[in-house]
Amino acid sequence: MIILGIDPGYARVGYGVVHKEGNTLTCGMVGCIETLKTDAPAERLYTIYKKITQVIETEQPELIALEQLFFAKNTKTALRVAETRGVLLLLGKKHNLPVREFTPLQVKVATCGYGKADKAQMQNMIMRIFKLATIPQPDDAADALAIALTAAYTRQNYTAS
Amino acid sequence: MIILGIDPGYARVGYGVVHKEGNTLTCGMVGCIETLKTDAPAERLYTIYKKITQVIETEQPELIALEQLFFAKNTKTALRVAETRGVLLLLGKKHNLPVREFTPLQVKVATCGYGKADKAQMQNMIMRIFKLATIPQPDDAADALAIALTAAYTRQNYTAS
Repeated sequence: MIILGIDPGYARVGYGVVHKEGNTLTCGMVGCIETLKTDAPAERLYTIYKKITQVIETEQPELIALEQLFFAKNTKTALRVAETRGVLLLLGKKHNLPVREFTPLQVKVATCGYGKADKAQMQNMIMRIFKLATIPQPDDAADALAIALTAAYTRQNYTAS
Repeated sequence: MIILGIDPGYARVGYGVVHKEGNTLTCGMVGCIETLKTDAPAERLYTIYKKITQVIETEQPELIALEQLFFAKNTKTALRVAETRGVLLLLGKKHNLPVREFTPLQVKVATCGYGKADKAQMQNMIMRIFKLATIPQPDDAADALAIALTAAYTRQNYTAS
């Protein structure tokens, strides 16, 4: 089972691929797409579209896991992130990939077993779970791995039930 | 000059193509994409993507004109419309089409010469300007034509200045 986790944003979009074979989890492509403030909105969305397409074509995931958009205080930012979300949902559909969404709480519980885990705890768990020598940088990349992990665990639970 | 006007929504997306030759305006493909409530968000966005792609390929517009998203009271709706916007901006970029945005006020002034024009006045003007026998239905289709018209007039002004 290959899962592509995405931490959707506008200036930065984290992505992380998790390969799950039995109980073994390994990570595939991990990174963060940064879009330029000086680029037009359409250009920035296209940058995200092209990179995520490349990740999908390379890794051939079977599922996309997205962090659910929270209702930000900053409406303008929320609307921009929603535009990215639209592009990601479209990409999922174009590649016949189901898209599952998880709340930040679900991601924390799945990764650390604790809904109030802070960023450092999350990153440490990600490092340990995937046996990485260093914490994936930037934060958005580690977050994306945690989101993919959540989908991997949730699916395991589904199968068990 | 061929302009594709789009009234972005989620359940309904109006589109209308305006052909401008000198001072003559005629309308091309006009309609409204309706997405099903029973479909998943990704499916609904894909329906919009496919139809607008078809309109672009058929009409070969040189410009996309969008109505600017207003900050709706209903945040959930605004976020859904922003997802559609993301897909439309991406489509513009994929086809190398510039995307211009206009406020509802600009559209009313361009169409009726009056910023407080109501829906009936707008539709009547659209009917007269394009010498149509009937008002394009539904409203979203007429709105999309008005948006394309605004871009046509604005461009004319640019050229004149």
